[in-house]
Amino acid sequence: MDGRNKKFILELQKKPKLRRESGLYTIDGPKMAGEIDPFDAENIFVTKEFLSSKHFEDCAELIKSRPYTLISEAEMKQLSDTVSPQGVLVVAKQKKYKGLGAFAEASLKYAAANNAKAPLFVLLETLQDPGNLGTVIRACEAAGATGIIADAETVDIYSPKVVRSTMGAILRLPYISVQDLKKAANSLKSGELCGQSVRLYAAHLDGAKDYTAVDFTGPSAFMIGNESRGLSDELTKLADEKILIPMCGHTESLNAAVAAAVICFEASRQRRNV
Amino acid sequence: MDGRNKKFILELQKKPKLRRESGLYTIDGPKMAGEIDPFDAENIFVTKEFLSSKHFEDCAELIKSRPYTLISEAEMKQLSDTVSPQGVLVVAKQKKYKGLGAFAEASLKYAAANNAKAPLFVLLETLQDPGNLGTVIRACEAAGATGIIADAETVDIYSPKVVRSTMGAILRLPYISVQDLKKAANSLKSGELCGQSVRLYAAHLDGAKDYTAVDFTGPSAFMIGNESRGLSDELTKLADEKILIPMCGHTESLNAAVAAAVICFEASRQRRNV
Repeated sequence: MDGRNKKFILELQKKPKLRRESGLYTIDGPKMAGEIDPFDAENIFVTKEFLSSKHFEDCAELIKSRPYTLISEAEMKQLSDTVSPQGVLVVAKQKKYKGLGAFAEASLKYAAANNAKAPLFVLLETLQDPGNLGTVIRACEAAGATGIIADAETVDIYSPKVVRSTMGAILRLPYISVQDLKKAANSLKSGELCGQSVRLYAAHLDGAKDYTAVDFTGPSAFMIGNESRGLSDELTKLADEKILIPMCGHTESLNAAVAAAVICFEASRQRRNV
Repeated sequence: MDGRNKKFILELQKKPKLRRESGLYTIDGPKMAGEIDPFDAENIFVTKEFLSSKHFEDCAELIKSRPYTLISEAEMKQLSDTVSPQGVLVVAKQKKYKGLGAFAEASLKYAAANNAKAPLFVLLETLQDPGNLGTVIRACEAAGATGIIADAETVDIYSPKVVRSTMGAILRLPYISVQDLKKAANSLKSGELCGQSVRLYAAHLDGAKDYTAVDFTGPSAFMIGNESRGLSDELTKLADEKILIPMCGHTESLNAAVAAAVICFEASRQRRNV
């Protein structure tokens, strides 16, 4: 492969700004590569060894339908952000919604396709840890969330570590990054965004109500705050209800991903029992 | 500070073997330092700036009651495993139980002190990610677990990253690392360990029963498997019941810390409602 290409891919993995400007990101490994729309694959790099490995089947359709570049295992090792590269790396187009309206539409479509009882959004304020963000997205998908909205200060979802820790959820669950999270929250609440009012819940250490005593079977949105500061007062004020996860021992707070997962799975439990 | 001391501390943070052999580990930052028993502090290093900072109060008792070594901020930066050292670093003695019996005793004492309705153990098999292990311990404490048993293949709990991500739970919740996790599981089940039989649950993707439909209000133990392989067949066979966290979307599995947290918080919910 040529040096310019190599430099671009390495920088794409390191620089959020380059990802934003180019609208591209990298996908590492056959499982996730096999899940993307082939038309979103801008560039595909594979090793000869991979083409005859048992994991080839995981993304055979992509590789058979699109041009690819053969590179050596040594080159792959240089390109890949992981310790043990799996032999396939894709430069892919980011999924971009044209505004909140298009995102909400995709989210409602996703909800219908997954037989969700009601929309369930997770709003993320300034999440800083890439592993955390990936874990949130993965757990939220599993718990039946139908869309995720993050503010612009939340770490870039297309960073290699986030992508990897979503385990593919990033390709399935509608996600949008917005400049004004308050505005997004308000438009969920008013009904403007989904054609029905969505109840806003703030996960908060001063929450008034045990989260298991709140009815999450209707359209709901959970607001999760920054790892160390928690949810800002501005967003907390918008909530229809402040909810608390009661904690034992002397724990002061929960990891943001754990808090999001615990609340979403409680919603999931309630929705199964409706 | 002398070079030998410095080398020892740096190696202590890097080498599990040295931690095991010396029975020591490092605690970084005033909050956790303030929680240890002063008699467990082998060596204390502080910067002059820290002594007059507002965070001094977090561990004032420790520093007033034990000898310490003043070092420069530059030296602290070299010693500390964190990006922004907070000015205090303690070399501390690990908490070691003399066998499973002593651990169980500590766990029952902890349960009584925290008004736990019944013992709740979490058994960890070969957890590999330090951040994951720390998050598990932190979440389990919050969800009312009364003891954690890990196999020897689980990453060392005294590694700096685990210690940090427990947010202090490591100093409070009884924890033991065992050579034979099957034996430990069996002695919980038989009643030998706690004077009452503890029901063993395997969190498993082929789980037969929705975890929210199982009664966790009695003495319970949850077995959580390795991040990629899940729980081994050997341990799964020992379970009184296999439990499943129903998942939406196309998620194949949950992050181990999320799975542990979701199950423990369901137990916590049930126990609050008894």
